Amino acid sequence: MDKQNKKAEWIWYPDDFEFMLANKVMTRRYQREVFIPPYWRLEQPNCNLKFYRDFELTKENVFTVKADGRFNIIINKKGEAGDNFIPVAAKPFAVAKGQWSMCISVYNDTGLPCLFVDSEEVKSGPGFTVSDGNYGQPACGCDGFFDADISPNQYTLPVEEIGYVSKERLSDTKRLYDFGRETFAFLKILGVKNSREITIFYGESRTEALDFENCELFEKVQITPDNAVTGYARGFRFAVIDFGGLLFDDICGLFEFAPIESKAFFQSGDSKLNDIYRTAEYTFLLNSREFYIDGIKRDRWLWSGDATQSYLMSFYTSYDIRIMRRTITALGGKQPVKTFLNGLVDYTLFWILSMWDYYMYTGDSEFVRSKFPLMQAMTEFYKTRINENGLLQGIEKDYTFIDHAVKGSADEISALQILYAKALLVMGDFCELFGIENDYHARSQAVMKKTRALYWDADKGCFYHSRVKGQLDGRITKHANIFAVLYGLVTSAEKEKILRGVLLNDEVEKITSPYIKFYEYAALCETGCHEIVMNEIKAYWGGMLNEGATAFWEEYNPLEKGAEKYAMYGRPYGKSLCHAWGASPLYLIGRYMLGLYPATAGYGSFVLQPALQVLGGTKSRMPTLNGFVELEFKGGVLKVYASKDGGELRLQSGWCANPPAEGRLIDGCCRYEIQAGKRYEFLLRDEL
Amino acid sequence: MDKQNKKAEWIWYPDDFEFMLANKVMTRRYQREVFIPPYWRLEQPNCNLKFYRDFELTKENVFTVKADGRFNIIINKKGEAGDNFIPVAAKPFAVAKGQWSMCISVYNDTGLPCLFVDSEEVKSGPGFTVSDGNYGQPACGCDGFFDADISPNQYTLPVEEIGYVSKERLSDTKRLYDFGRETFAFLKILGVKNSREITIFYGESRTEALDFENCELFEKVQITPDNAVTGYARGFRFAVIDFGGLLFDDICGLFEFAPIESKAFFQSGDSKLNDIYRTAEYTFLLNSREFYIDGIKRDRWLWSGDATQSYLMSFYTSYDIRIMRRTITALGGKQPVKTFLNGLVDYTLFWILSMWDYYMYTGDSEFVRSKFPLMQAMTEFYKTRINENGLLQGIEKDYTFIDHAVKGSADEISALQILYAKALLVMGDFCELFGIENDYHARSQAVMKKTRALYWDADKGCFYHSRVKGQLDGRITKHANIFAVLYGLVTSAEKEKILRGVLLNDEVEKITSPYIKFYEYAALCETGCHEIVMNEIKAYWGGMLNEGATAFWEEYNPLEKGAEKYAMYGRPYGKSLCHAWGASPLYLIGRYMLGLYPATAGYGSFVLQPALQVLGGTKSRMPTLNGFVELEFKGGVLKVYASKDGGELRLQSGWCANPPAEGRLIDGCCRYEIQAGKRYEFLLRDEL
Repeated sequence: MDKQNKKAEWIWYPDDFEFMLANKVMTRRYQREVFIPPYWRLEQPNCNLKFYRDFELTKENVFTVKADGRFNIIINKKGEAGDNFIPVAAKPFAVAKGQWSMCISVYNDTGLPCLFVDSEEVKSGPGFTVSDGNYGQPACGCDGFFDADISPNQYTLPVEEIGYVSKERLSDTKRLYDFGRETFAFLKILGVKNSREITIFYGESRTEALDFENCELFEKVQITPDNAVTGYARGFRFAVIDFGGLLFDDICGLFEFAPIESKAFFQSGDSKLNDIYRTAEYTFLLNSREFYIDGIKRDRWLWSGDATQSYLMSFYTSYDIRIMRRTITALGGKQPVKTFLNGLVDYTLFWILSMWDYYMYTGDSEFVRSKFPLMQAMTEFYKTRINENGLLQGIEKDYTFIDHAVKGSADEISALQILYAKALLVMGDFCELFGIENDYHARSQAVMKKTRALYWDADKGCFYHSRVKGQLDGRITKHANIFAVLYGLVTSAEKEKILRGVLLNDEVEKITSPYIKFYEYAALCETGCHEIVMNEIKAYWGGMLNEGATAFWEEYNPLEKGAEKYAMYGRPYGKSLCHAWGASPLYLIGRYMLGLYPATAGYGSFVLQPALQVLGGTKSRMPTLNGFVELEFKGGVLKVYASKDGGELRLQSGWCANPPAEGRLIDGCCRYEIQAGKRYEFLLRDEL
Repeated sequence: MDKQNKKAEWIWYPDDFEFMLANKVMTRRYQREVFIPPYWRLEQPNCNLKFYRDFELTKENVFTVKADGRFNIIINKKGEAGDNFIPVAAKPFAVAKGQWSMCISVYNDTGLPCLFVDSEEVKSGPGFTVSDGNYGQPACGCDGFFDADISPNQYTLPVEEIGYVSKERLSDTKRLYDFGRETFAFLKILGVKNSREITIFYGESRTEALDFENCELFEKVQITPDNAVTGYARGFRFAVIDFGGLLFDDICGLFEFAPIESKAFFQSGDSKLNDIYRTAEYTFLLNSREFYIDGIKRDRWLWSGDATQSYLMSFYTSYDIRIMRRTITALGGKQPVKTFLNGLVDYTLFWILSMWDYYMYTGDSEFVRSKFPLMQAMTEFYKTRINENGLLQGIEKDYTFIDHAVKGSADEISALQILYAKALLVMGDFCELFGIENDYHARSQAVMKKTRALYWDADKGCFYHSRVKGQLDGRITKHANIFAVLYGLVTSAEKEKILRGVLLNDEVEKITSPYIKFYEYAALCETGCHEIVMNEIKAYWGGMLNEGATAFWEEYNPLEKGAEKYAMYGRPYGKSLCHAWGASPLYLIGRYMLGLYPATAGYGSFVLQPALQVLGGTKSRMPTLNGFVELEFKGGVLKVYASKDGGELRLQSGWCANPPAEGRLIDGCCRYEIQAGKRYEFLLRDEL
């Protein structure tokens, strides 16, 4: 008999809650009246389960058992066989003192089969195991649902009333409401006196809401005095409502949100940068929901490439490991691995990479270990896409994304090789952690060797974009070069070459999506170009603010003016104006400008290496795992405080005017130990 | 563009309808008030599908599309990309003359996602393909559901009113109803005037129905004037109803049945045998439902070992290939193979063996081919259970059934080796049919070689029962010996030895269940012991009739008297009194007494070898694939008629008094060609 749970909670077959919930969330996408389900395989929960628990009672206990699904309960004396059914399953029943073996069968084919058991000494939770009828009896899944009366199948996010900021009369029956900024809400009609069908046209922009024929979202809703709320919460800022003959008093929104708090605070001397940070935070909050989704208006889906960045943003804001685990699990799916996540060749690689980030920031090797067989199966699946030249290449039915600028089911793309090499490296690192013999590191090196031989131009300092029919196509894109630098797959000398040859080379095709800018700017910071990145952040995200953005966009091209800036995917309002990957300044500022990151897994030790030369003064607080770091830089004085041990402040050699005794000079950096609970002050040189 | 369907029918992802329906059917088991779901893994349908169809229209067509689930429709000009959604999905819409590519997405997470498309030139059916989001786009599944208004999710068997034959007053509120024979029915209260909860105690025997504390089935039902039918159809003959204060006129049953017709007719000179045959037919009819189930009162489940026999019985009665395919599919489950069918080590082997029977009697190699990857995976899975001695043996968590007399998670059982050898043989035969290189035949021979070396006693003429810790346990059971003879895995000399050493040896443990008697008697007939078998049939099944049986039982021991004969599994009425495997005389009579069987797959050629020496006169008709054979034997004259070509009548040499010219003498048998549509008469010697 293993660990006892302190509080009873709902349990299920591992991962099945996440699959069920992701299915619900991802099938709320509508494009005008058209229902659009995800393009890829969705997993169904196991329908027929048996939950097991052996226990000892020191006295008679009264048990309450609830299940979502039909169920039965067998309680036998421990070690005795038989089917001693508890006759009245739905009512509380008593079990005498002694040692017992319990088996509860639950069947549900229209939702998640799940279970709640409560008694004084036995409570459902991680100590229960479960079988789906195959061999193996894993620990059951749970996610903190402690209310016996609310099954996980009924789980929804909370809502909060919000008001619009302005109203405009368009016609006798039509009104335009502006909620002041992007939001994710149901609409509620207040004081309804009669019953009518109303029509709602939503817009992330005013232009979109007023374009009734083309706005991405519209719906007809039957409103009655008893039922005056829309059926789905939608992503929008503006709404035009045609009330027809409805008699009512007013409307409001019901803002639907994940109850997470930002654990971060950032303030700099530049108010534009502060605005960018706050808008990024809000963008990220809107996209942090049951899962980390891509954007609130259109897909509302879990995309692995997008989520990989969201996790990193989360580590510098909400640090919400629960949403993260849910997202990783739902995206990962079930074995056998028969396809790529989201149907994109590169997106399974990002999923594997995200596990290393997850591990470094959370130290949660147990979770990674539970996913490791799946990770191994995913890695093996890539073997089916190694072509006759030994390169990773999608087959005809595959789709390789990388970026909107690269997408297609294409040729031998260099970026794919680099991502693959990094994924193999991560797999090898995990094997070492778990003590599993493996050849992943050797395979990674072989991939890089081949990639260098086939794509690297030492004179130009670049990996070429791709090979077509065995020949380099001559095109140079940044993607492979960015990943190679960021993931440390090239030597210092090669890194320098790439910096000049590609990253800072104006003649190379520019990255236009915030998605790849995330990696581009991270790579530039890795090569010390903080100032360039800071200027870019101010220009690019600042540019969106200048366009009136209240959340950051899926894509932004400063040259597009007027309504053309809302178009994408061949539709006039196809572009998402509140997209998770638009919020990347959160990561870039936290990780590179404030310079905080774990040096060992789970923030056992960590580094704080602020880019004081570009911050121009700051007062900030960033989360760590179960803690935080505060940093204030003003008037030539840097103050640092950490709530946990293991910190190391790194300042560029020569910055500090009063180097404390404990500072050590390594690689041109002064390093100072930061202990928990102590306040440190550093006097810095004037020019900073 | 491939085959066009003549009539639109509902379509789905292959196998998913069968999984959905089997889940529904198998979760109707209740033991008193306790819900008992199957012990094994149940499959869920894929929830997120895309159906595809390319087509050409010679003129404008109006399309009607229905789906069970949320859906959208994209119709593009053939060869053009894009998402041309049909805006109003639920209403009929027109498509112009031309070549088109259609993709319909259907999502359903609470039932089977399925689709119905109808227009003048395009109708949903086998020509459509479907994707579950993995690679591959198989032909969709369908099962003859042509009514657009009834989705396959609503499929139920028809019902028919039946009356009870007698009524008995037990108390003021309680009445006992006898329906005269076993039935499978809802109960309906007629002329209800008020609303009350009634309690129903069911019994296959009068004793059971009157034992309120122990009868296997009872239920409380809330009866109102508008809702006066029980929720599930149950297997029973007697019902005690406690009406409480309910005011009503009368009751009746609603007999629920599969609308299949028996294609067979059997009449012999022995009225007991005729009764046995008719009771067997009725028993089999009751258990032939949405699927071939095991028994109607208790499990109501699909069991592979049981179903394997049901298919063979069906070939001599209803020949219902639709129920057969459904049952095979639902039992087979999805890949990957992670467990044994029904959780029993031997039951996957029977599933593989049943595919050969299915193929021989139906000639449907296409269906077998579609299951062949699954069969291969099943066969591979057995490799995980080859122990260090090279023998097939369950691991600790496995359960090997074979028979109630053998069951357990046991030792190295000889019967398992024989079944495995036969399964490998079947796999090899299919590989030859499909032109797949393989080593199955060699593996089969190796298994038999080892089995002979370790279990065979040439002196005694037996395979011993099992080995425990590397040593023979000295026990002799019939099972391995029966299977070895029946499947032709021993030489003629060995067969003779087994006959004397085991099959006809009174000192060997007797087979007591009709389940293994099926194989025992088949093996005896294979060794020419028709007379013994005929006597056994009359004694054993006749014995049940003498006990008052109106359907045949799960198990019968003539020594048990009174209520003890109803007990099984430690419960006083645990035994099923209407069990599919109880109906095996259907097969034994058709296959061995009338002697009809396909000589080549699909009855391309077939044999009729009646055991005239034991029949004592008969007038019978037996089905073949798409045809029938008639046989009349009376007053020394044998009349034979077949509706299809390819027949060969075999009569023992010396039986025929007027051998026609075309008879050939081979192996002591006179063989006569039977051509379609001709009536043959043979004058036989007096002593027959």
